[in-house]
Amino acid sequence: MGKLVFIGLGLFTGDLPYRAVEVIRRADAVFIELYTTVLPQDYIEYLIKITGRSDFKILTRSDLEDRGGEDVLEVAAKGLAVLLVGGDPFVATTHMALRVEAERRGIETEVIHSSSIISAIAGATGLHVYKFGRCVTLVYPQPEVGYIPYSTYEVILENIERGLHTLVLLDYRHEEGRAMTIPEAVSILLWLEERLGVEKSIRDRVAVGAARVGWSTEFVRADTLANLREVDFGAPPHVLVITGDLHPTEVEALEVLCHLPRELAIKLLRRR
Amino acid sequence: MGKLVFIGLGLFTGDLPYRAVEVIRRADAVFIELYTTVLPQDYIEYLIKITGRSDFKILTRSDLEDRGGEDVLEVAAKGLAVLLVGGDPFVATTHMALRVEAERRGIETEVIHSSSIISAIAGATGLHVYKFGRCVTLVYPQPEVGYIPYSTYEVILENIERGLHTLVLLDYRHEEGRAMTIPEAVSILLWLEERLGVEKSIRDRVAVGAARVGWSTEFVRADTLANLREVDFGAPPHVLVITGDLHPTEVEALEVLCHLPRELAIKLLRRR
Repeated sequence: MGKLVFIGLGLFTGDLPYRAVEVIRRADAVFIELYTTVLPQDYIEYLIKITGRSDFKILTRSDLEDRGGEDVLEVAAKGLAVLLVGGDPFVATTHMALRVEAERRGIETEVIHSSSIISAIAGATGLHVYKFGRCVTLVYPQPEVGYIPYSTYEVILENIERGLHTLVLLDYRHEEGRAMTIPEAVSILLWLEERLGVEKSIRDRVAVGAARVGWSTEFVRADTLANLREVDFGAPPHVLVITGDLHPTEVEALEVLCHLPRELAIKLLRRR
Repeated sequence: MGKLVFIGLGLFTGDLPYRAVEVIRRADAVFIELYTTVLPQDYIEYLIKITGRSDFKILTRSDLEDRGGEDVLEVAAKGLAVLLVGGDPFVATTHMALRVEAERRGIETEVIHSSSIISAIAGATGLHVYKFGRCVTLVYPQPEVGYIPYSTYEVILENIERGLHTLVLLDYRHEEGRAMTIPEAVSILLWLEERLGVEKSIRDRVAVGAARVGWSTEFVRADTLANLREVDFGAPPHVLVITGDLHPTEVEALEVLCHLPRELAIKLLRRR
């Protein structure tokens, strides 16, 4: 029987694990999925340079979600198939179906993990990883088909009530060439709370906008949620963190790493 | 001014990012911290082989936590200092103090992220990353000094009430050569709930024991929490997941990847 290896490409060009290069070279076929995460444009060129192979097969959403990754499974049934995924492969839950199907068919699977926004956000902001509640993805509302992401707002509120931070991942529509920005996300959240008629707005909570985490052009800013709407964060990927209760060392890190305005820092430290 | 680069070594030998190797070669000094995570024994040997340098300076807890990483800062004030950390560097919150201090002194800092158990656990178990509540570390109780980790148990309960999974990281005492095992963790949790006199025990909840996640010897088992006490998981590192509500695709993944007993899977699917 063959084997299917999932390899994480991490956040930035060159973040893939050192040992993965040899596996890519040896593979009978190398597939790459580009629709769940925003990777730097030069990453494939970089892969060609370091692995010496250029026959990467790009998988579309339809290849994986409608056709169940049949092309990948066909190679993996007899030989060594590799699937490259941005970030850490199974943060995108969609890929687990392929892993489970491979195992059901008796194909051995292996995962070579890589960096993910899920843990990297702690390094980029100085917020403690133990103080994040469940994370959530904010999807563009589509009122015309009855979809309004109230549940995302509710997760944020639930976390705040428990004193926890929320990592808000932002909608990415690869096929439309569209990725939600931090200012857009703030506008959507404030629009949601207006429609929900909440008692206490989150507009004055300290939030962190983090663009291109792990990239050489990383840009991170902490301010009130409403103020982040006015900041130009540049190109995607963007994520947003709504803070819960802040430990003094977290406030200090937000000041030093994320330019949290001094007067907000003082207010936060007094409140304790 | 100089620069301080934090580089994640990831979970397993060779998981460090490909682009990090060049940075390690160029550095004026390379420090390595081995007390916050359990890495494979051959990792330093591997680093010597791929980077061609063997002058890694091992940092103790006291170097970083009592002396504030002064040796690192001294190099970084003028040249290029690298600090290697297992996993993704800032999952261990202790390293943020060093980054903040460096920035305060006008030293540029950079992070090259790598794989972490925080995201890898989703790939190892098939559980959805969006369904994890806050994570927690279970520390050995020390009743003799009045320390009993009730709060850890309470975080698990809080997550269960919201239908969320809990990733329980286990105590690692590098200086004593001691790392908590999954069976030990189960015993401690059941001892805690006895002392707390909780209404409903968690002993029959589905839990997942995951040993050496991301390693070639990874070993993962799902069963009731109480049953995991009887499994031999081998060498550390170990982590434990206490599940909240399970989606059918999660149950399926637990069966296929983690050998969840069929009768438990059927019970879980019926309950929905």
